[in-house]
Amino acid sequence: MEIYNDKIHIDDSVSFNNNATFCVGTGRMSLALRNEYHNQLKKVQEEICFSHIRGHGLFCDDMAIYHTYEEDGVEKIEYNFTYVDMVFDDYQSLGLKPFVELGFMPEKLASGNQTVFYWKGNTTPPSDYQKWADLITATIQHFISRYGREEVITWPFEVWNEPNLPGFWKDADREEYFKLYNVTSNAIKNCDLRIRVGGPAICGVDDENWLMCFLNYCSNNKVSIDFVTRHVYATQAPKKDGHYEYQKLRSPESLMSELKNSRRIIDSFPEYAGMEMHITEFNTSYTPLNPIHDTNLNAAYVARLLSEMGDFCASYSYWTFGDVFEESGVAFTPFSGCFGLVANGMIPKPTFWAFSFFHNLGSNAIARSEYFIITKDSEDNLHGIAWYPVEENVNINVTLHFTIELNNGFYILIMKRVDELTCNPLKTWIDMGSPAYPSKEQLVLLRECARPQIRTKQYEVNHNAMNFDITLSANALCYFEIQRIQCETDQGYHPECIRGARLPF
Amino acid sequence: MEIYNDKIHIDDSVSFNNNATFCVGTGRMSLALRNEYHNQLKKVQEEICFSHIRGHGLFCDDMAIYHTYEEDGVEKIEYNFTYVDMVFDDYQSLGLKPFVELGFMPEKLASGNQTVFYWKGNTTPPSDYQKWADLITATIQHFISRYGREEVITWPFEVWNEPNLPGFWKDADREEYFKLYNVTSNAIKNCDLRIRVGGPAICGVDDENWLMCFLNYCSNNKVSIDFVTRHVYATQAPKKDGHYEYQKLRSPESLMSELKNSRRIIDSFPEYAGMEMHITEFNTSYTPLNPIHDTNLNAAYVARLLSEMGDFCASYSYWTFGDVFEESGVAFTPFSGCFGLVANGMIPKPTFWAFSFFHNLGSNAIARSEYFIITKDSEDNLHGIAWYPVEENVNINVTLHFTIELNNGFYILIMKRVDELTCNPLKTWIDMGSPAYPSKEQLVLLRECARPQIRTKQYEVNHNAMNFDITLSANALCYFEIQRIQCETDQGYHPECIRGARLPF
Amino acid sequence: MEIYNDKIHIDDSVSFNNNATFCVGTGRMSLALRNEYHNQLKKVQEEICFSHIRGHGLFCDDMAIYHTYEEDGVEKIEYNFTYVDMVFDDYQSLGLKPFVELGFMPEKLASGNQTVFYWKGNTTPPSDYQKWADLITATIQHFISRYGREEVITWPFEVWNEPNLPGFWKDADREEYFKLYNVTSNAIKNCDLRIRVGGPAICGVDDENWLMCFLNYCSNNKVSIDFVTRHVYATQAPKKDGHYEYQKLRSPESLMSELKNSRRIIDSFPEYAGMEMHITEFNTSYTPLNPIHDTNLNAAYVARLLSEMGDFCASYSYWTFGDVFEESGVAFTPFSGCFGLVANGMIPKPTFWAFSFFHNLGSNAIARSEYFIITKDSEDNLHGIAWYPVEENVNINVTLHFTIELNNGFYILIMKRVDELTCNPLKTWIDMGSPAYPSKEQLVLLRECARPQIRTKQYEVNHNAMNFDITLSANALCYFEIQRIQCETDQGYHPECIRGARLPF
Amino acid sequence: MEIYNDKIHIDDSVSFNNNATFCVGTGRMSLALRNEYHNQLKKVQEEICFSHIRGHGLFCDDMAIYHTYEEDGVEKIEYNFTYVDMVFDDYQSLGLKPFVELGFMPEKLASGNQTVFYWKGNTTPPSDYQKWADLITATIQHFISRYGREEVITWPFEVWNEPNLPGFWKDADREEYFKLYNVTSNAIKNCDLRIRVGGPAICGVDDENWLMCFLNYCSNNKVSIDFVTRHVYATQAPKKDGHYEYQKLRSPESLMSELKNSRRIIDSFPEYAGMEMHITEFNTSYTPLNPIHDTNLNAAYVARLLSEMGDFCASYSYWTFGDVFEESGVAFTPFSGCFGLVANGMIPKPTFWAFSFFHNLGSNAIARSEYFIITKDSEDNLHGIAWYPVEENVNINVTLHFTIELNNGFYILIMKRVDELTCNPLKTWIDMGSPAYPSKEQLVLLRECARPQIRTKQYEVNHNAMNFDITLSANALCYFEIQRIQCETDQGYHPECIRGARLPF
Repeated sequence: MEIYNDKIHIDDSVSFNNNATFCVGTGRMSLALRNEYHNQLKKVQEEICFSHIRGHGLFCDDMAIYHTYEEDGVEKIEYNFTYVDMVFDDYQSLGLKPFVELGFMPEKLASGNQTVFYWKGNTTPPSDYQKWADLITATIQHFISRYGREEVITWPFEVWNEPNLPGFWKDADREEYFKLYNVTSNAIKNCDLRIRVGGPAICGVDDENWLMCFLNYCSNNKVSIDFVTRHVYATQAPKKDGHYEYQKLRSPESLMSELKNSRRIIDSFPEYAGMEMHITEFNTSYTPLNPIHDTNLNAAYVARLLSEMGDFCASYSYWTFGDVFEESGVAFTPFSGCFGLVANGMIPKPTFWAFSFFHNLGSNAIARSEYFIITKDSEDNLHGIAWYPVEENVNINVTLHFTIELNNGFYILIMKRVDELTCNPLKTWIDMGSPAYPSKEQLVLLRECARPQIRTKQYEVNHNAMNFDITLSANALCYFEIQRIQCETDQGYHPECIRGARLPF
Repeated sequence: MEIYNDKIHIDDSVSFNNNATFCVGTGRMSLALRNEYHNQLKKVQEEICFSHIRGHGLFCDDMAIYHTYEEDGVEKIEYNFTYVDMVFDDYQSLGLKPFVELGFMPEKLASGNQTVFYWKGNTTPPSDYQKWADLITATIQHFISRYGREEVITWPFEVWNEPNLPGFWKDADREEYFKLYNVTSNAIKNCDLRIRVGGPAICGVDDENWLMCFLNYCSNNKVSIDFVTRHVYATQAPKKDGHYEYQKLRSPESLMSELKNSRRIIDSFPEYAGMEMHITEFNTSYTPLNPIHDTNLNAAYVARLLSEMGDFCASYSYWTFGDVFEESGVAFTPFSGCFGLVANGMIPKPTFWAFSFFHNLGSNAIARSEYFIITKDSEDNLHGIAWYPVEENVNINVTLHFTIELNNGFYILIMKRVDELTCNPLKTWIDMGSPAYPSKEQLVLLRECARPQIRTKQYEVNHNAMNFDITLSANALCYFEIQRIQCETDQGYHPECIRGARLPF
Repeated sequence: MEIYNDKIHIDDSVSFNNNATFCVGTGRMSLALRNEYHNQLKKVQEEICFSHIRGHGLFCDDMAIYHTYEEDGVEKIEYNFTYVDMVFDDYQSLGLKPFVELGFMPEKLASGNQTVFYWKGNTTPPSDYQKWADLITATIQHFISRYGREEVITWPFEVWNEPNLPGFWKDADREEYFKLYNVTSNAIKNCDLRIRVGGPAICGVDDENWLMCFLNYCSNNKVSIDFVTRHVYATQAPKKDGHYEYQKLRSPESLMSELKNSRRIIDSFPEYAGMEMHITEFNTSYTPLNPIHDTNLNAAYVARLLSEMGDFCASYSYWTFGDVFEESGVAFTPFSGCFGLVANGMIPKPTFWAFSFFHNLGSNAIARSEYFIITKDSEDNLHGIAWYPVEENVNINVTLHFTIELNNGFYILIMKRVDELTCNPLKTWIDMGSPAYPSKEQLVLLRECARPQIRTKQYEVNHNAMNFDITLSANALCYFEIQRIQCETDQGYHPECIRGARLPF
Repeated sequence: MEIYNDKIHIDDSVSFNNNATFCVGTGRMSLALRNEYHNQLKKVQEEICFSHIRGHGLFCDDMAIYHTYEEDGVEKIEYNFTYVDMVFDDYQSLGLKPFVELGFMPEKLASGNQTVFYWKGNTTPPSDYQKWADLITATIQHFISRYGREEVITWPFEVWNEPNLPGFWKDADREEYFKLYNVTSNAIKNCDLRIRVGGPAICGVDDENWLMCFLNYCSNNKVSIDFVTRHVYATQAPKKDGHYEYQKLRSPESLMSELKNSRRIIDSFPEYAGMEMHITEFNTSYTPLNPIHDTNLNAAYVARLLSEMGDFCASYSYWTFGDVFEESGVAFTPFSGCFGLVANGMIPKPTFWAFSFFHNLGSNAIARSEYFIITKDSEDNLHGIAWYPVEENVNINVTLHFTIELNNGFYILIMKRVDELTCNPLKTWIDMGSPAYPSKEQLVLLRECARPQIRTKQYEVNHNAMNFDITLSANALCYFEIQRIQCETDQGYHPECIRGARLPF
């Protein structure tokens, strides 16, 4: 396929709200105590620099915050913030703020036994809402005491996770959630009115109805809300097989229309019109057992989403940064279809690079289509990303033809490619025989196979326009930069006399 | 070009003496105090693991070993080993032993003013041979005291450098050199008979005559010699232009015949027949101003040499590991035609990978030609290197067709390529406009462009033979490994259902 | 108190079997996935260099090894070694081999619900001994495949933990344990006869009876046993108060006599006489809630034990290297009376230095008493440790007077002290107000307060004897070294003219 | 001696201008390419955090900036900024800005052969002032191009070094220096008027006269000057012996009066009144061969200076941060009387801690005397430093008695001591026999002996005043902090029941 794009002027301006790195998801909080988790997150931060991180399980028992004991025949409560300090200290050292999800329920405060996931998060309402409010207050006061009040007011707080699913909230009881939200929001605002709180953290099941009711509830009861949160995933119903689940993708358009609907609902409330909507989880598939997460298809599809989601959303948090994750148990293999940007064994997946590339992009777009986006930085260097998701098992490609209006002079085009041939560690792992327990040497090779291929080319622009093509094979993701250069020449240095110094791209 | 190679049996055995990593050259010793030098050498050792390192300037004044002072009207001598300790401690921490070159002359012990290089190494005989012998003795006794006697006897000692050139040894005075050798050899053996000493460290000028006379001298005068040393370079006379010198390559055959002649001369002495010959310097060009050192041509040409030099030589020391080097002054640009495997700014050049690949090869060859070599390790994995040097400015390539007898089963072929398109940082630097002072961001890009491209492919062998081709573009260098694999299958994992998991090479 | 010791001759030899660093204990295996755990263990290894590590929980569900699933209506078993690989890879990278404790019971293989500890290790026999044997076999085969057969035969395997306590083994059922031991031992030997297996891993409750019966059982039933294991602790019954338990110490003599009894029982079996006895756990207190573990008293008391336990035991494994430990829940404060050599927050406790000092000691003792031990290394340097445990709350001290026969000449005495005044981070933490969540700055200060105080002094020996004193305050631990020195003098350097260069000790 | 200080109120305010960390000196610029230099500077920056660094030799030939070549029979000039980039990049990575000293003269631009130091810096005027101006311009333009204009305007530029000494400037020719200053100042201002330039960089020889004339010259000729620079040292004439020079100290008062005089002269010019005076070099002794630099006396004396010099000076740059320094040749031993805060082998000297302590102090003083200074930070924590320099060889001490008005409550006093007994690596090195080439183990011990001793104590303030004493032995330097604490108590934790948890200071 050939696509001839309109001539691009570097002084053009097109809308683009790049919040790809505002927030990222994580496995449950106690996993943040792990060594592999720390290493994966460090790698992610070195390359991508997310600002916030959000995950489940702050109040689960493995975080050991909520305790009771008997004194003089009376049950008393004590809190232990040792582990949450370890986690948040580590986040801070990696340049991350928490996007705090308040949940799930400590066993001793729970009203029932219902749990979710392999790791058994209790998903029932508190047995005593006052004790819940006390827990929220004590937790936030502790945060203020350790990290400083001015810091904590920069952390968003979200109440619970996906209460519209019965697995995550007993009976998906809407009124009960509203009560939880109300109590929690009040407890937070009592600590400091400036701390921002939001909900309802719903996924795409009965979402329009839930959102409408939630906002009505807040409005009618004058419950504080600073932002709206929801989730979105791009896959259809799964087919299970052994440890895995396979799914078809939805179109990006159908996903975007879900978000537009939420946006529309929010804006329909005069008092909430324009309120920030944070997508606190998104990905292609919602199951950590779908191999799509490990593929180049995932990277190309997500790149398209990253170019568009900012049109309606204040942020969109990829679920999740790494594969230290146990919702469906412990993976049997390093590539296991889990959500992460990094596979266990410190192997960046193709989607890792989608985020790295958007991190480099800035927000000042000058051209944009279904296949690419181009921005300009403060020094007039151009940055672009192109993608070509192909779900079917066919070998096709597309060539994008670009013409950019530029001043005459010399330029370098730098191109970094991530495609099924050049940066596909999943394929290399399968070539190795899909070892469940790869050796150190195999892990080194997998990491080496997980880097973009880089090429450069020098252009001389003579007639105020630079023409170049980018050919994308199926599921290719391509980052490019165009920089003006000064050609210097050292005394007696003649590239044309040096074998290999001048070559076609 | 198509080349169909004979069928290879993994139980075949062909001669191959792989000493590519025995020794490497370095800029003058005081440069070893530098930070960039340390970092470059560390990188080299992490990837290549040389055993020894050899360079000039141990006794030059910037190493500050030899001092005189007056006491009671008498001139006295004192030694300061502070800097040489720093250097050798650092070598030791990087897994390196010195191949000690004894030279040049401390100013206060010199008989004249003649110097060599920008850094002015004094190249005249000692004014007092007894003081020279004392210096040798004190130095070796210090080494023994710091590093241990058993360690020092594993360090080869070489007397002076290229005395057959008048620039390196006043008047290229042969008899004077023999005297120096005699005195030095005696001083060494008086420290410990087990310490090994050699010479005459000549380059290829009047070399046959020099070598013959030297061995005659040793033989007639019963002077101890444990090994013979010489140098070899592969270029013709230079054409100068500004800061640079351009040269044509000699054929590898002509270079090898020079070494064969030396070998023949040594073996013609009954008492020296079979004595080790160490090539204590080799490279394509002998000038640090020839851009060839930075090219893929250099890598491909050197690979050929590495596959053959062990046929006649105990070792061959590439001149030099890095570009911290000042013989012709301080380079004006990061790529300056200097000898190093690593350019300043921590950029591995293509030839860096030639050594890395030979490091992985082992010595047990099963097939070998003008274009490739294949070895087998103790676990029956195969390792190979192929190369295709092309000096002319043409775009041609060669395809090598291999058939290897292997047991039926599954195999992975891993291929790492370094060629003008995929791993050519020189070209990227030129694409940038040849900046003399690249920015940090430019240096990062140059390093990223200096890594081999890696691909893998799975093979099923059904009829006891694996067939595969390697196509080499001009000046390509290609490393490959063939490993038998076990194909494992996790419950429900189906690569054929995962987009991109199975692809052609 | 003044103690005048007999004159010491450096050619004397007294018995001393220094195995202080053979093995160390650890919290349950899944904690080894933690970041703080890794960092603490790294610090321990850098300073102390243990050879082996042993802890509970290999087969607990958080290690996720044992899984069942249904296929065609039949329950099948699958194993997942992902986490144990992560742990053992990390151990290997830190220079440690596992001393493998085989236990506790995976829930799906358990015959009952009884659990031990906050983290709920199942302590019931297997519901199916064949499946247990299969689990052992699969695990060891996996170890062999990943780490190599020759490596695995160097790992000791111990069957279960403290089966003589009903909490650790249902009803402390002796016959059931013997059955478990028998099945396990057989499964191991079927993997490789060279793999070493031992038991019964008992603590000091009914221990003589248990050991006798166990050895009788092995002997009568020809069950393989390669070594005997037991535990020993030095405290009396605890007094509980809030989160803590307080205890009195037993005398070292009473503890040693327990070990002597075990030794005697083993030696009473002709076929087991002289068999290795490994103390796979020891410490002062057996509860992780006793503040004694954080004190200088603990260090001084343990030093005494380390000087004597080798008289009867092949090794003795301090329980435990660090405070990442959850048997009684998650500690509320960094100093919490837990077993570790390192407190959470990376603070070495005084006992850390006891092990560091014994690590430096070697085994060649020349003098030894209730208060000190002195050894000599291959270069005739002397190393010593002195200690002075005082449990009562009094300020007393002891002075040890030494006379050592030495050749005339110059010597340096290096002394490193750990006592309640100079290296007592617990006290500093209390001075800080006992903060549950110390700030980064407080942690830095705590680490700085946790280093031995070092002093040196030069001696000139004139009459073939060196006299020196060591004064130990209560609970002091003191390491000293005596090295012969050469006095060098640089031209014109006069220490006596330099203020502060010559001082009393 | 007993000193009873007046009662201190924490709301008091006394003058104190703490610029101890504004700038530090360094050996000649090409030494900044060294590995040991980088490591020493890194250690200094981690602990002390200087803002600027100043040293000689920017234009010396080993920095390789200035080159000439012939083209078509004409001599042309080219510049090579490779090495200065390496140096300044490294400074930048360590958080340092250059305080740029413009000098000495490139050989090819020099008017004579006179040189200074072992490393032969040419100290003659330029042979062509236009070429000198071009060199200044090219250098500054290069800095602007690499580091950015806004950055370069924050770098002070100083013209030459100590032109009032004939060794540093031919004949100490004042008029010639003024010409140099004029040309240089103009060249700088032509690059950017905002770049700050100063001089005359004189030492204390004929300094009043020089300063007066210099300012007159600038004033009369309208030459730009943004700040005045001078040097100051505290020793009398040296007595030479072998490699060393011994001197007596001047009183701090006499040194301060020198600075006051300079201040007075500047202020006597209406147009320069209040102009910044930077002491671009100071130390006790001006010779790198005086062992005093390695002593505790030096630390205690310098502490006194650091408490007072800000009264008259904008900054005062300790000469120098480390012992990589070759002005008098290469030191024969690790402690050699050289200027550095860190001895070769990475051993911090006592004076290192004087700077570390002043770094922690802040500027908000509440009490100050000849023996101590106390400051308060924004959280009302108190920080203090006390010192007691004693040059004579006597063992005396002083006790300072403090009373500080504080609110009732609990406080921790943290005390860090550096004195001849507790932190005196020079003495340990002498105890070792003064080894010229210490082993790795010896260096580790020397570093361990070079850390302050730390003690803490808890105080309960009951009557609004805290009383405490500090006893300083001769040449002690003591840092202390007083922080208010909250006493927390975990359930059941009783320090009084734990041996060693509560002790006298």
